[in-house]
Amino acid sequence: MQGHSYQYFELVGTSKTSVEDAVQNVLAKAASSLPNMRWFQLVETRGAIKDNKVSEWQVTVKVGCRIEE
Amino acid sequence: MQGHSYQYFELVGTSKTSVEDAVQNVLAKAASSLPNMRWFQLVETRGAIKDNKVSEWQVTVKVGCRIEE
Amino acid sequence: MQGHSYQYFELVGTSKTSVEDAVQNVLAKAASSLPNMRWFQLVETRGAIKDNKVSEWQVTVKVGCRIEE
Amino acid sequence: MQGHSYQYFELVGTSKTSVEDAVQNVLAKAASSLPNMRWFQLVETRGAIKDNKVSEWQVTVKVGCRIEE
Amino acid sequence: MQGHSYQYFELVGTSKTSVEDAVQNVLAKAASSLPNMRWFQLVETRGAIKDNKVSEWQVTVKVGCRIEE
Amino acid sequence: MQGHSYQYFELVGTSKTSVEDAVQNVLAKAASSLPNMRWFQLVETRGAIKDNKVSEWQVTVKVGCRIEE
Amino acid sequence: MQGHSYQYFELVGTSKTSVEDAVQNVLAKAASSLPNMRWFQLVETRGAIKDNKVSEWQVTVKVGCRIEE
Amino acid sequence: MQGHSYQYFELVGTSKTSVEDAVQNVLAKAASSLPNMRWFQLVETRGAIKDNKVSEWQVTVKVGCRIEE
Amino acid sequence: MQGHSYQYFELVGTSKTSVEDAVQNVLAKAASSLPNMRWFQLVETRGAIKDNKVSEWQVTVKVGCRIEE
Amino acid sequence: MQGHSYQYFELVGTSKTSVEDAVQNVLAKAASSLPNMRWFQLVETRGAIKDNKVSEWQVTVKVGCRIEE
Amino acid sequence: MQGHSYQYFELVGTSKTSVEDAVQNVLAKAASSLPNMRWFQLVETRGAIKDNKVSEWQVTVKVGCRIEE
Amino acid sequence: MQGHSYQYFELVGTSKTSVEDAVQNVLAKAASSLPNMRWFQLVETRGAIKDNKVSEWQVTVKVGCRIEE
Repeated sequence: MQGHSYQYFELVGTSKTSVEDAVQNVLAKAASSLPNMRWFQLVETRGAIKDNKVSEWQVTVKVGCRIEE
Repeated sequence: MQGHSYQYFELVGTSKTSVEDAVQNVLAKAASSLPNMRWFQLVETRGAIKDNKVSEWQVTVKVGCRIEE
Repeated sequence: MQGHSYQYFELVGTSKTSVEDAVQNVLAKAASSLPNMRWFQLVETRGAIKDNKVSEWQVTVKVGCRIEE
Repeated sequence: MQGHSYQYFELVGTSKTSVEDAVQNVLAKAASSLPNMRWFQLVETRGAIKDNKVSEWQVTVKVGCRIEE
Repeated sequence: MQGHSYQYFELVGTSKTSVEDAVQNVLAKAASSLPNMRWFQLVETRGAIKDNKVSEWQVTVKVGCRIEE
Repeated sequence: MQGHSYQYFELVGTSKTSVEDAVQNVLAKAASSLPNMRWFQLVETRGAIKDNKVSEWQVTVKVGCRIEE
Repeated sequence: MQGHSYQYFELVGTSKTSVEDAVQNVLAKAASSLPNMRWFQLVETRGAIKDNKVSEWQVTVKVGCRIEE
Repeated sequence: MQGHSYQYFELVGTSKTSVEDAVQNVLAKAASSLPNMRWFQLVETRGAIKDNKVSEWQVTVKVGCRIEE
Repeated sequence: MQGHSYQYFELVGTSKTSVEDAVQNVLAKAASSLPNMRWFQLVETRGAIKDNKVSEWQVTVKVGCRIEE
Repeated sequence: MQGHSYQYFELVGTSKTSVEDAVQNVLAKAASSLPNMRWFQLVETRGAIKDNKVSEWQVTVKVGCRIEE
Repeated sequence: MQGHSYQYFELVGTSKTSVEDAVQNVLAKAASSLPNMRWFQLVETRGAIKDNKVSEWQVTVKVGCRIEE
Repeated sequence: MQGHSYQYFELVGTSKTSVEDAVQNVLAKAASSLPNMRWFQLVETRGAIKDNKVSEWQVTVKVGCRIEE
């Protein structure tokens, strides 16, 4: 008998307010196409700058999803 | 004329017995959705511990699949 | 209101002539299945050797695609 | 005469709310066994996902502690 | 005709409250000497510890600035 | 209320037969001093060579242990 | 007596045609402000995609410049 | 008086059965040309896939050999 | 029966014109001493600068060669 | 029968004079708490600057210690 | 109120005698243009070889400088 | 006409006294088999510990040698 298997998906989310909000945003948007999301890893944090302020936080996350059987 | 093209998929497989078995398990489970698997790279080896023993081997592999034309 | 979200896809392209041509080839072939490609990162450059010459350039690229809403 | 010496300890902290809170939590819990904590480095940020939301933020930190003389 | 060019500057910002605030602080302070800041990458997150709490968040960012023509 | 916290310990195990056996060996030996081992990551695989054969497999693992409260 | 000293500058150049052209472009544009450029290292190759083709090659280079005495 | 010196050689071995067997195979084949092999480091594990199974395990190892005096 | 074995050689090639040409040059020059070259990986791209232009492209490649039996 | 096992400890040593002296200093100070030190790896070299001179060399080392049985 | 901010500068220093001397040399030469140097990180150690001896030690350091307010 | 080509060799040198001495030792010993050594890169610094002191410094260097024509 085999154990469970998972697939990683690498996503980029954005937010005007924070790193945490950018992660939540991309999970919300990916929910319809990736129904079995179990964990994520934060791969990179970047952002856009406008008028010497961060105008957009951009996070790259790898999301682990269980493969349905 | 163009040469062949490939896509990588990053998967996590598990096994109670060995690294090799965890790789074989995840390939078996991915076979239905990834029909053209050609090669893999072992990205990470982890595991769960129970009663001071490895209770599950967990491997992350990147699988190269040929893009059909 | 959320900002845009993106997904990365990791692809391998090939060419007999150059790195740039291998990138263009894999984008052309992926166009039908990945309709919203916006940017790429060159992850790795390899190649096959025949008769002491490069017979095929092989590039691995990560392509960022906008998730449709 | 020798200068000061330090030892690193690698810890994982968790929080339901944010990266910063997860770091503060693990420092609070480690305080009794690691009394001379001076600085930390954030090594990794991960998290658990439940119902398409981050249910737990998980941070790995390396904490530098002064070795008492 | 050439496209645009950019220069990276690597900066360290600090804050008593959060990662995001530390990034905003260093952008504010660099604004006078780096007038064309467009984007940043978060390279490292560290901090000082006092009384078993984070007393200062320290972020290293690489800031991309457009080279004026 | 805080979530759980964990500490990593980095260990080297050895075996005459296999990678898996070297991991099991070091967990068995660490069990008395690290009572709450939950998971591990395989960091490095090396070995000694004698008479053109692997005479000892050497694995470096990072073991995650729950901090008791 | 001391030997020579150098400073690195990290730049991003762009081109519509090739990696090599993007490097040459950024060196040409940096020439006025960095008069003693001696060598470079290609740090990253990226690009923008439009209509399923690379519309702009973007290279990040670190340029070594001799410090005048 | 100087201590011993060593040279690294980077090799790729293959096996139909396991990682360990692939390492042993490449050491056996390198024995005639590299007579003083003392230790190795496993650098990469890859493999070929046929009919959704690993058909060949491929390991890259760096072998440390003593330089004869 | 064992599978094939390979040895990596790390080489630096140069060219006045392009990355691709620098790779071809070093393969041509290595052909007499490395007769069984099968594939390469591009490890690093650097170059010399003269009069604010790239005067020489320098590529580091790892070449995989089959070990004869 | 099992082979030997080892534990890594990551330490920071300092010296006013040299990298080598900083390593020796931290080993001397760790001797009382880490009695079975066998080897080390130099992980990072940093330092403090005062009046445009290095006022303190700071080395991070990972020390391998044999686990007593 | 904001905390302090810092800028990194990446420099290459050389010496005929040692790593430590090469670091001191480049700090001395950079002192006039970088007046607020506080710490450094040793990024790379290289060197030139002549007559089978190191003829020049070359160190790359990242120097942290306080941004004046 | 082609430019020069080079080959890297990865060596380990040892010394009882210092990092610099270990590099010089391995170059001296490699001189007979590697006649065209031009530069090196320090890849790793390790060492053996005896009686809580460094008993042997071990350096891994990659040496660049010109390929004769």
